Amino acid sequence: MISKNKQKLISSLAQKKHRDKNALFIAEGNKIVLDLLQTSLKLEELWATEEWISKNQTIIQSNSSINECTVNELKKVSQHKSPPAVIACFAQKDHQLNIEELAGKLSLFLDDIQDPGNLGTIIRIADWFGIENIICSKGCADCYNSKTIQSTMGAIARVNIHYLDSASFFSNIKPLNLPIYGTFLDGNNIYHEELTSNGIIVMGNEGNGINPSLEAFINQRLLIPNYPTNSETSESLNVSVATAITCAEFRRRAF
Amino acid sequence: MISKNKQKLISSLAQKKHRDKNALFIAEGNKIVLDLLQTSLKLEELWATEEWISKNQTIIQSNSSINECTVNELKKVSQHKSPPAVIACFAQKDHQLNIEELAGKLSLFLDDIQDPGNLGTIIRIADWFGIENIICSKGCADCYNSKTIQSTMGAIARVNIHYLDSASFFSNIKPLNLPIYGTFLDGNNIYHEELTSNGIIVMGNEGNGINPSLEAFINQRLLIPNYPTNSETSESLNVSVATAITCAEFRRRAF
Repeated sequence: MISKNKQKLISSLAQKKHRDKNALFIAEGNKIVLDLLQTSLKLEELWATEEWISKNQTIIQSNSSINECTVNELKKVSQHKSPPAVIACFAQKDHQLNIEELAGKLSLFLDDIQDPGNLGTIIRIADWFGIENIICSKGCADCYNSKTIQSTMGAIARVNIHYLDSASFFSNIKPLNLPIYGTFLDGNNIYHEELTSNGIIVMGNEGNGINPSLEAFINQRLLIPNYPTNSETSESLNVSVATAITCAEFRRRAF
Repeated sequence: MISKNKQKLISSLAQKKHRDKNALFIAEGNKIVLDLLQTSLKLEELWATEEWISKNQTIIQSNSSINECTVNELKKVSQHKSPPAVIACFAQKDHQLNIEELAGKLSLFLDDIQDPGNLGTIIRIADWFGIENIICSKGCADCYNSKTIQSTMGAIARVNIHYLDSASFFSNIKPLNLPIYGTFLDGNNIYHEELTSNGIIVMGNEGNGINPSLEAFINQRLLIPNYPTNSETSESLNVSVATAITCAEFRRRAF
């Protein structure tokens, strides 16, 4: 069963302030819970139907935080329309950013990415392309939002997300002399630019692009050209799609 | 106002069978409606608040299908949680695929892409990269689903979507001798492969990849390598992300 107290806790974790206070987050549904159970993330507690538990014995075997409960109980605390067979509560990661560690690496800076799904997809992309650190402006969606967690497909466990004040961050990394890239609709064709294996790639907000106050920090303006050039087309690419193409192009240079 | 009959019609268009029967579809909300109004799509009828109409006079000026209504009326017929200021009904596109027109072009084949958001994002990607035709297996989401329409950001007007039986389609294009590409987790590094400026790129279902029954038609198996190669990472990339990177790489060869 799910005790009254735990019901309260699970429901409260739908809100960022309670996630922050408890340093916990919720994952709902078979696929994402199984993905996360196979990472280094610390499971706090898990509630599932008898059927789910017996099906997944090998994965959860000796774990004492497993609780059997009914579909109705899951329905009560679920944020989904149709109740999942399993809900799990994990500890948030505790990782401090050491600025120096960015020196030799490629990292992402997200400027007010607001859609939780986009953020999750970007975390999954970063994981695929070996980008260990994502710096998020304070205006970004929360990486522990359940939609974000769902879209990361488990990548949240392997990528470090840091929420920092944008201006302070860019001032702090100045001594590293890192190349700072940004994507713009009037940038230079990315395929003709020199791209380094370290640096920061800045991706802008869904509707407004990169905040003008950050442009001064950017020393290379990139464009993903449409095809054929100058043909009538969409105004822009979705930000997670643009992030994917940009990261792929940086890594392609290494092959 | 929105008459009782129109209310019924709008609500019914949330279902594919009614969209198909009437050859209509619905777009909800300021951004997507404005995007679509500026394309070649035929507007059937539009309902909006007084405020929205006066703000957008220049775009809708001489159009007789514009109806003023209240927020409450919009709320009644909306599929969104918070009612939009505008709802519009457009005619579906009427485009027959002529197989021969694929000969010199790059096209996409989507195999059971089930998420409407993924489908919409892929349509937007196709538009960016000058891919005029997308062939969808019968198991794909409907391109006139409101979530798909929303994610296309207007690209639905410029890309032709054809729902066809997979096996018949691949048999029918045999005489064209087109290269057929597919992305696989055990394919060949896309950056080392020869990619042509025409052909078909097959993208597989979100959970299951490309249907085994289609593999025989594919003559080049591609892989988007993760970085660093063989490091521990996500199982795969999201299908719209993989489509974006693949299409970008095909078009990059032309720059």
